[in-house]
Amino acid sequence: SNKKLLVLPGDGIGPEVMREVRRVVDWFDKRQAVRFDLEEDLVGGAAIDAHGVPLADATMEKAMNVDAVLLGAVGGPQWDSLDFNIKPERGLLRLRKEMELFANLRPALCFDALVDASTLKPEIVSGLDIMIVRELTGGVYFGEPRGIEELPSGERRGINTQVYTTSEIKRVAAVAFDLARKRDNRVCSVEKANVMESGVLWRDEVTKLHDAEFKDVELSHMYADNCSMQLVRAPKQFDVIVTDNLFGDMLSDTAAMLTGSLGMLPSASLGDIDETGRRKAMYEPVHGSAPDIAGEDKANPLATLLSFAMMLRYSFDLGEDADLIETAVKNVLNEGKRTGDIVAPGATMVSTTGMGDAVLSALDHL
Amino acid sequence: SNKKLLVLPGDGIGPEVMREVRRVVDWFDKRQAVRFDLEEDLVGGAAIDAHGVPLADATMEKAMNVDAVLLGAVGGPQWDSLDFNIKPERGLLRLRKEMELFANLRPALCFDALVDASTLKPEIVSGLDIMIVRELTGGVYFGEPRGIEELPSGERRGINTQVYTTSEIKRVAAVAFDLARKRDNRVCSVEKANVMESGVLWRDEVTKLHDAEFKDVELSHMYADNCSMQLVRAPKQFDVIVTDNLFGDMLSDTAAMLTGSLGMLPSASLGDIDETGRRKAMYEPVHGSAPDIAGEDKANPLATLLSFAMMLRYSFDLGEDADLIETAVKNVLNEGKRTGDIVAPGATMVSTTGMGDAVLSALDHL
Ligand SMILES: CC(C)[C@H](C(=O)O)[C@@H](O)C(=O)O
Ligand SMILES: CC(C)[C@H](C(=O)O)[C@@H](O)C(=O)O
Repeated sequence: SNKKLLVLPGDGIGPEVMREVRRVVDWFDKRQAVRFDLEEDLVGGAAIDAHGVPLADATMEKAMNVDAVLLGAVGGPQWDSLDFNIKPERGLLRLRKEMELFANLRPALCFDALVDASTLKPEIVSGLDIMIVRELTGGVYFGEPRGIEELPSGERRGINTQVYTTSEIKRVAAVAFDLARKRDNRVCSVEKANVMESGVLWRDEVTKLHDAEFKDVELSHMYADNCSMQLVRAPKQFDVIVTDNLFGDMLSDTAAMLTGSLGMLPSASLGDIDETGRRKAMYEPVHGSAPDIAGEDKANPLATLLSFAMMLRYSFDLGEDADLIETAVKNVLNEGKRTGDIVAPGATMVSTTGMGDAVLSALDHL
Repeated sequence: SNKKLLVLPGDGIGPEVMREVRRVVDWFDKRQAVRFDLEEDLVGGAAIDAHGVPLADATMEKAMNVDAVLLGAVGGPQWDSLDFNIKPERGLLRLRKEMELFANLRPALCFDALVDASTLKPEIVSGLDIMIVRELTGGVYFGEPRGIEELPSGERRGINTQVYTTSEIKRVAAVAFDLARKRDNRVCSVEKANVMESGVLWRDEVTKLHDAEFKDVELSHMYADNCSMQLVRAPKQFDVIVTDNLFGDMLSDTAAMLTGSLGMLPSASLGDIDETGRRKAMYEPVHGSAPDIAGEDKANPLATLLSFAMMLRYSFDLGEDADLIETAVKNVLNEGKRTGDIVAPGATMVSTTGMGDAVLSALDHL
């Protein structure tokens, strides 16, 4: 049966990179065993402009009923002054929360052809292949109480709550251990157990789950500040990192930047497998909406394309089709084709559309 | 009148690096206008072993009554399994909290002689000179409620509270703006105002203070995840960064690692100026207790020495004496003398004591 996809291009460069990805989706639809039914809708600033909210209820409803969501990017300066609760980001956070996408997979991969794009020395990052598993529906992002209150003194007080339960910790840790088994079999769990009780619980529950069900996987623990350092000092020491929502936000961005090519990095956000055997899932590039180059046909569509490849792998168990995309991308890079963000002396600069053309042609030649 | 110092060497390499620093303190005591009365006491694991607590009340009392505290480092594997509330770190956190050391100054400076020690490319870090001002007595480190509770379901829940008030934000921001005026006059304030209300308040109060009292300083705002990236991508874009306790913990460690020489980086933790004109203050290296090399006369004493230089500058307004130390350190590095952590081909490796000797001799020749 056809796979139902909801495509949410969003803001900034979202629509133009998504256009190229849709051409690749079409290619798969025509050439491979898999068939897709696509629907497109609005999220973020685009939804605010159309409906006054960053995600309409009807769109949320659709997201709940498809096999997977593919998202571009949200946000831009024209919506920056809006109130906290109706900013573009809230659309994204609502999708994550209501779909219960608790496990955010962020690979930080350094492509051989792009080693020189990193600000780190080649020997530090060449061959880098880390998978960060970030908890995505808990912690300080969603904890209550939260808000800003007026004190009798006339001062104000801002509050957020970092909270994790046993089951929230275990389900994301299980995803990390499972992934590690298919990789180098090592998980590093990251928190601040020396300062935060929520971190003590995190470490404790991860350890218990490990000892009960994943004894074959090598488990280590690290404080988040030390992890921030170690990612810069010797990133190749890591295989899978599992951490909470806020630490994951920062550490995955550091890790992404190590590779020097943010425009190349995909992500997957996964929920639980339900009674019908379906796992809710959303796929999106790590980069943002890049309003400064939006509409100029300059943006790199590869991160969104590789997010689609993750979808094939994680939502549809089509690992070989995912491999096809990843190989096509590598071939295009090896041919020296580069969008502006990763261009280097000797390379051929191409537009967003040009990169789409190159990938399609590479796919045809596989 | 003599300056009263409390010296807390702590654990691991703390005592041996402090020994070298005390020789330099003696040098100043004998040669310069300033006189010191030193007292030494225990903190961290050393205090646990002696008194069963990571900081005895009598030591806390002393800290409250001296002109400045100089601390080595705390922690080590032998105390890792202790309960959260009596770990070595609690000694440090108690000092910060009871002395109300709300402003933690962490310079990330790349020494010319050590550019190659960085894992980043020389052009990215050479000349790097960032000052991170981290709020140190608030936020999730101290917020209530906190703890781990049992739920009726049998699950456990871990809670910490991120909380900031108007005055907590303003006093640390004022320190950052003041510092910026003596530097490149730029402050970047970092939070997650797109996700956390405490971050919305932070941004708001920093902006208000700026507009009211520091209009001449250039102010920008950045999300913490983006800052994690930008530190790796282009760290020289920053002059002063001001941020909260937890973000500051991670970002200052990333920044420290960019310089490639953690063993070189000092810090100052400052309180308010009281009625008697005295400002409570503690100075400590950014590196930890490095238990793996403790007692081997290998550790780099320069970070603790440069922390003493910060004391001369910030507690005693002895900027010229601080300059003497900083120049002596640069000269020693330029002579090619290096402890193991920063040794490189062509350099002369020296011990902890050897580095102390080299600095004293450099001071004699200034
Ligand atoms: C846009 C923002 C709300 C989001 C986050 O903080 O999670 C982003 O930084 C991310 O990492 O996906
Ligand atoms: C030792 C630990 C409690 C401390 C902190 O988290 O503040 C340390 O990492 C630091 O940055 O000084």
